[in-house]
Amino acid sequence: MSNQPAHPTLLIPGPIEFDDAVLQSMSHYSTLPSSESHVGAPFVAVFGETLSMLRQLFQSSDPTAQPLVISGSGTLGWDLVAANLAEPGDDVLVLHTGYFADAFADCFATYGVRATQLKAPIGERPQLPEIGRALAEKRYKLVTVTHVDTSTGVLSELQRLSELVHRVSPDTLVVVDGVCSVGCEEIEFDRWGLDAVVTASQKAIGCPAGLSISYYSGRAIESFKARKTPPGSYFASFKNWLPIMQNYEAKKASYFATPSPQLIHALHTSLTQILSMPLSERFAKHKAVSQKIKKAVADLGLKQLASNPADQANGMTAIYLPEGVKAPELLPNLLRKGVIFAGGLHREIATKYIRVGHMGVSVMDEGRGDAQKAIEALGVGLREAGFERKV
Amino acid sequence: MSNQPAHPTLLIPGPIEFDDAVLQSMSHYSTLPSSESHVGAPFVAVFGETLSMLRQLFQSSDPTAQPLVISGSGTLGWDLVAANLAEPGDDVLVLHTGYFADAFADCFATYGVRATQLKAPIGERPQLPEIGRALAEKRYKLVTVTHVDTSTGVLSELQRLSELVHRVSPDTLVVVDGVCSVGCEEIEFDRWGLDAVVTASQKAIGCPAGLSISYYSGRAIESFKARKTPPGSYFASFKNWLPIMQNYEAKKASYFATPSPQLIHALHTSLTQILSMPLSERFAKHKAVSQKIKKAVADLGLKQLASNPADQANGMTAIYLPEGVKAPELLPNLLRKGVIFAGGLHREIATKYIRVGHMGVSVMDEGRGDAQKAIEALGVGLREAGFERKV
Repeated sequence: MSNQPAHPTLLIPGPIEFDDAVLQSMSHYSTLPSSESHVGAPFVAVFGETLSMLRQLFQSSDPTAQPLVISGSGTLGWDLVAANLAEPGDDVLVLHTGYFADAFADCFATYGVRATQLKAPIGERPQLPEIGRALAEKRYKLVTVTHVDTSTGVLSELQRLSELVHRVSPDTLVVVDGVCSVGCEEIEFDRWGLDAVVTASQKAIGCPAGLSISYYSGRAIESFKARKTPPGSYFASFKNWLPIMQNYEAKKASYFATPSPQLIHALHTSLTQILSMPLSERFAKHKAVSQKIKKAVADLGLKQLASNPADQANGMTAIYLPEGVKAPELLPNLLRKGVIFAGGLHREIATKYIRVGHMGVSVMDEGRGDAQKAIEALGVGLREAGFERKV
Repeated sequence: MSNQPAHPTLLIPGPIEFDDAVLQSMSHYSTLPSSESHVGAPFVAVFGETLSMLRQLFQSSDPTAQPLVISGSGTLGWDLVAANLAEPGDDVLVLHTGYFADAFADCFATYGVRATQLKAPIGERPQLPEIGRALAEKRYKLVTVTHVDTSTGVLSELQRLSELVHRVSPDTLVVVDGVCSVGCEEIEFDRWGLDAVVTASQKAIGCPAGLSISYYSGRAIESFKARKTPPGSYFASFKNWLPIMQNYEAKKASYFATPSPQLIHALHTSLTQILSMPLSERFAKHKAVSQKIKKAVADLGLKQLASNPADQANGMTAIYLPEGVKAPELLPNLLRKGVIFAGGLHREIATKYIRVGHMGVSVMDEGRGDAQKAIEALGVGLREAGFERKV
């Protein structure tokens, strides 16, 4: 249960509802000094521990792997990949499951990297045989996959994809956009042979927005070090950040750009909470709540964008609205009922669907009743919009 | 007075001590919903007001000028300038007063921009006649000046510099690194004819770290729009951010990357506090406290890096240590006395000096007694290190 005052429950696919302790760790000065030096021993210890906890979150024990935490938004993760892991003129393969692949491709173009998109129809994902054929046709420096595309709720499968890439094109790096998946979807970084996962603080990790969080394999770092050209970004340059992160994790102060002690404290608290139980339990819980919501959606006679159950995200659901129900009327009505859902984001069909997030404390803290509240509000809201449940 | 528990007073040149209300606005959920949508009306209004208040902070009323607030650190401001206001192959002139000019020049190089540095001896700044000669010799796309170089405490004069640039090289943009000056040093953006000021949240603006804050003239925006090449960064691209900022200020939700509602709330609170009195009073107060600290430093027989009083910053003081006193021994002793000062940052002389910050609530809230505490601790610390005051 939260001690926060009554407020509409934030059930969008991020930012999510935050735990009281996480919010308090940004400013709750009965236990923590809130103004502290970014190079003082107390903060250096907290940042160092935070980086080490990220290794656990990614189920990674490879000492050559490298976590990065940088002030920025999830979007910065694309620059980190495009400016460090690819070089101008390189070809990269972008697997498309919605808006975020288009944007990642734009980012590559900015750095002179040639992105080839492999697109699937809305609500689906590119399939392994066509990915294999694409990889066999051209030498790709890396392949990107959006683990959960926040615009469609499509979940991509990582393990067999990574196996395929390693088999068909062993030099190609496997890069995951995990903005809407890290913390709610299973990721075994080392065992699956991933090379990069980029994410953000405000989704299933449950820490306020403002941090770009990413994780790289030793192979990705080696690939960076073997570049023929310098990195294409200054603020997002591995050259500038790798020594800083390595120093902080070794509990040594280091300076390239001033980190945000408040947000790092919040991240430390959220990671401590996440790692206080086996990750498998956390993922199972997200799956169970997701199933409950998806069943309620089906019971209402509604369809998801992701029609194949195997392609459905466990931290969010994207739902087609019934004929005649308009998002700009439904969403404000749901807000009056105390829940905030999100509108559509995929440009081609933006007005035809809504998105519900079910991640973090809204899932893990059943006492909040957030999922039930979401289901009930949706049912009543649709009825009030004139939609009668199909039997 | 702060209600924060006893903790060492943070007197480094940023991050600084934060006001209780600013910290609380990140998470104090008795008055604010702490989990809120980045595209919901309540947050959009707060972000829009924040952008409008920045216009006041920069004493700017030109409607073509543009504020930007992006998740990131102060360093990101350099990328914003180098990737948007200059193009590959352009020449830019970097006025050097310490570490931060070297770093800015590195940033330009990343984006293929040719930076020529005009250096002054440590503790001094390039003078107008030599700057005029440099500007006459070559066509520079822009000239950069570090308003206060945090590594040396050297204050640069902006108004006459800008007049010179406009006279000698009227097409050259005037770009100010104001990371350690905005909020404590006078800046009249419109009247002085500035084209860009980049800064960060955690220094004299008094908001926790994690926000890159910058301000551009209509001329700078036109210069961006006239580019022949696309911007060199994705996350720092004006093309991506300008419509977002314009929408938020018009109170319309907009999405490119998720902002941090918590930090924006804190910034809104700190700007509201800053603008609650005439800015001239705030600057005068910083000057008065700075004079008091600098007099105490002189009375101790110590010298500042900036030897010319006209070149001395009003929000920080960089002090040469007396012969025999070592920073790695003095600073921990000062911490035990309850004040945190910073070590040297200028590579050539890093171990030979210390830095004291005096900005924000430590200056504006006299009840805290921070300046007096700093002066007393320094005197006792030096005495304990065996240094006797010269008479």
